[in-house]
Amino acid sequence: MQITPFLKKDANVPIYLQLYQFFREEIEKGSIITGEKLPSIRELSQSLNISRNTVDTAYQQLIAEGYVVSREKSGLFVLELDDVPMVQEVQHELKLPHVEGKTDNLIDFQYGDIELERFPIKVWKKCLLGAVDAPSHEVFSYGDKKGHYGLRTEIASYLYQARGVRCSPDQIILTAGTQTAVNLLIQLLSLQNEKVALEDPGYDGVRYVFESQKCEVVPISLDEDGINITELEQSSAQCVYVTPSHQFPIGMILPVQKRMKLLQWAGKNQTYIIEDDYDGEFRYLGQPIPSLKSLDTNEKVIYLGTFSKAFLPAARVTYIVLPEPLVEVYQSKLFYISQTVSQHIQEALYRFMKEGHFGRHIRKMRKIYQGKQAALLKAIECQLGDKVNVIGQKAGLHLLLELKGLDAKQLVEKAEEFGIRIYLTEKFWLKKPPQFDQPIMLGFGGLSVEQIESGVNQLARVMKVCEINQKIGEMKS
Amino acid sequence: MQITPFLKKDANVPIYLQLYQFFREEIEKGSIITGEKLPSIRELSQSLNISRNTVDTAYQQLIAEGYVVSREKSGLFVLELDDVPMVQEVQHELKLPHVEGKTDNLIDFQYGDIELERFPIKVWKKCLLGAVDAPSHEVFSYGDKKGHYGLRTEIASYLYQARGVRCSPDQIILTAGTQTAVNLLIQLLSLQNEKVALEDPGYDGVRYVFESQKCEVVPISLDEDGINITELEQSSAQCVYVTPSHQFPIGMILPVQKRMKLLQWAGKNQTYIIEDDYDGEFRYLGQPIPSLKSLDTNEKVIYLGTFSKAFLPAARVTYIVLPEPLVEVYQSKLFYISQTVSQHIQEALYRFMKEGHFGRHIRKMRKIYQGKQAALLKAIECQLGDKVNVIGQKAGLHLLLELKGLDAKQLVEKAEEFGIRIYLTEKFWLKKPPQFDQPIMLGFGGLSVEQIESGVNQLARVMKVCEINQKIGEMKS
Repeated sequence: MQITPFLKKDANVPIYLQLYQFFREEIEKGSIITGEKLPSIRELSQSLNISRNTVDTAYQQLIAEGYVVSREKSGLFVLELDDVPMVQEVQHELKLPHVEGKTDNLIDFQYGDIELERFPIKVWKKCLLGAVDAPSHEVFSYGDKKGHYGLRTEIASYLYQARGVRCSPDQIILTAGTQTAVNLLIQLLSLQNEKVALEDPGYDGVRYVFESQKCEVVPISLDEDGINITELEQSSAQCVYVTPSHQFPIGMILPVQKRMKLLQWAGKNQTYIIEDDYDGEFRYLGQPIPSLKSLDTNEKVIYLGTFSKAFLPAARVTYIVLPEPLVEVYQSKLFYISQTVSQHIQEALYRFMKEGHFGRHIRKMRKIYQGKQAALLKAIECQLGDKVNVIGQKAGLHLLLELKGLDAKQLVEKAEEFGIRIYLTEKFWLKKPPQFDQPIMLGFGGLSVEQIESGVNQLARVMKVCEINQKIGEMKS
Repeated sequence: MQITPFLKKDANVPIYLQLYQFFREEIEKGSIITGEKLPSIRELSQSLNISRNTVDTAYQQLIAEGYVVSREKSGLFVLELDDVPMVQEVQHELKLPHVEGKTDNLIDFQYGDIELERFPIKVWKKCLLGAVDAPSHEVFSYGDKKGHYGLRTEIASYLYQARGVRCSPDQIILTAGTQTAVNLLIQLLSLQNEKVALEDPGYDGVRYVFESQKCEVVPISLDEDGINITELEQSSAQCVYVTPSHQFPIGMILPVQKRMKLLQWAGKNQTYIIEDDYDGEFRYLGQPIPSLKSLDTNEKVIYLGTFSKAFLPAARVTYIVLPEPLVEVYQSKLFYISQTVSQHIQEALYRFMKEGHFGRHIRKMRKIYQGKQAALLKAIECQLGDKVNVIGQKAGLHLLLELKGLDAKQLVEKAEEFGIRIYLTEKFWLKKPPQFDQPIMLGFGGLSVEQIESGVNQLARVMKVCEINQKIGEMKS
């Protein structure tokens, strides 16, 4: 293959990103076709006069996003592209359906729902059947306490490619959901009766677990760019739980400088960081920022990932990556803990990953979700532009809306009457600021573009009703 | 159908048991054939001049064991019997294969393994596929926090028929394994830093969970017939965890008088009993004793059941039955806890139960395990009769062997050299009695009759070797 990427060495965009974008566009345009082999790292670094590392980084990103696959000893090959709507395609003019009053078809902006129509149900069924047929005795027994070894191997290799996390399968422990994982970490790190710092606002489901285990939860407020490091330093916490790739629920991405400070904090105080990378797969804007774990030279970061967002909430599979020194502590202290994920699900997921379906699925879903998010943003801009500010649009499967002047609770209630379910966010705050105006949460993973558009359109009507009601209320009083 | 059971009203055996045994034998002999309808309760109670309750109890037992099925408004019908080896059939003469030294084929008497060859793999695959195909949105999402409602309904009805437990699906919570269930109960009952009484010896996997949650574990010793109630009364514990249907690991069955005392203790002290009925399905000797929960009029018993023994360890499904008053406490206190069992496994299990496969499976497995146990007992009697005492043969999937004079650790090590894996039991004891001689544990669920026979035969050789070694050791010293 002759390739001639036009690389601007003095541009703001790093070379590896330019190279990555070049290949991605060529593949998407069809200039480089399915099955074609990419030039070797050596060839390309020589012909472009750039370092091998730069080429490798670009290639790793292409692998992680499912554009190419690496075949042992033969090189990188371009994968088939699915017929996925591009972001541009959905930015057509908004239809304005005539909807009056309450509708029977509730449009539910529930966070946590995923796209089901394009879920690879046939492949998943094949994997499940294969799992039950697997000759391995283990598949029918309690199995490995840390989880299916093959699956842990697949996860380790995925994490290296996609998130820059270097770990061995021995460092990985599978659990039935993130709450189960956090419960286990509280035992492992002996956090009972100790101070644990949490982002405020943050994920309430995890906060309750810390509280139920008698941890003293210390809320740390957020700056524009994420967790306030000074407050953290003053907290004398033994451990911090953070969502740096996509702060939940606000959505900022922690810049690399702050990541380094966080790591310094942990190194200096001999404390641990729990990095919950719950939806790191779905990043739409800006260039990739390395995960905290990939920057962790002091073995102080415990990484959490989940298949709930990237694949299937119904699978209930979360994974913990322990720093090397904690593996032994785990084995001597928590040896008795049985595996909580069904062996059949583990074996099926192993097959799904091993056969390359997972990488492709992630890539496909990233486009689909990006398309949905674009539709949502466009609809919000057209319909609600003057009434809200959008928060957290760089990544993930939800947005927050800051309301200008409207009362959040009234809006949510009224929306329900009109067949639109949207969500309050106050439960995510532990310390509410004075004169707290909570934003509204819209999850879009489970809705079609049509539902999103029709939902926002309807929401605009609801807002008008609320405005009028509020004015009437003011006139009366 | 004309039926003429010969009931001895003055016999020691209660009428309902005689009636149950009559039907069971007639069905097994083929005198009453598949699809035939049993007489209605009214008819039979009139014709035999016995109470309707008596007939109903006998019929419930037949349903629970899968001999008949109840079809709404039409009555009870006889189910097809599988081609299952009867207990008698396996009591043939023992083969004595010539085995020398170490063998490549390890025979592993691991407790927790189940019979796989007769596992209904086709049906289970059908249920799994059906689950993934299910139109329900819930099957692909996080689902009901307490678990799949249909599955909870099936469990409620199974528990009524099989264990006399009356509960509504609302009282049932599904969890990924028993440790997860106990963890949840510790939160629910606020047992952290409180005294919790455990049978000693008992199930170590649960003891570790209590300890890790900072409960003060109080070991209660066992009498011949189960937990020592006086010690329990003196313990001032807030809660007791017991295995009354088949004490783990010793195997005694708590007599009904002691069950009543246990319930009185809980009623008087406003404490809770956690009844772990982990293998209540597999009872071979003696008449059924009602579960603690079925006798609980004070709402003080929390019942735990699992599909790990009765169905499949790989499913990782345990269920909690809460007393009615605790349901509200659960909802207000633990509302945040996500379901830990995969939706796909839950839906598949629901289908498996709803279509009647579960009841049949239990009945089939009871016979298979009974056959295996009979083979094991026979082999032990023939081969090791003078060297061991058998403990706990009334129920379950394991036996203990008390050694006469041999050292348990040496035996286990030497057996491993000879290709036989047997298990020490000291880990089940918290307070070891002075001059403690631990029994050996043999699980037989996962082994074939041939493996059992060959394993015990080999064990006899190992014991001889150990005896000789011990004598040599004595002579030397």
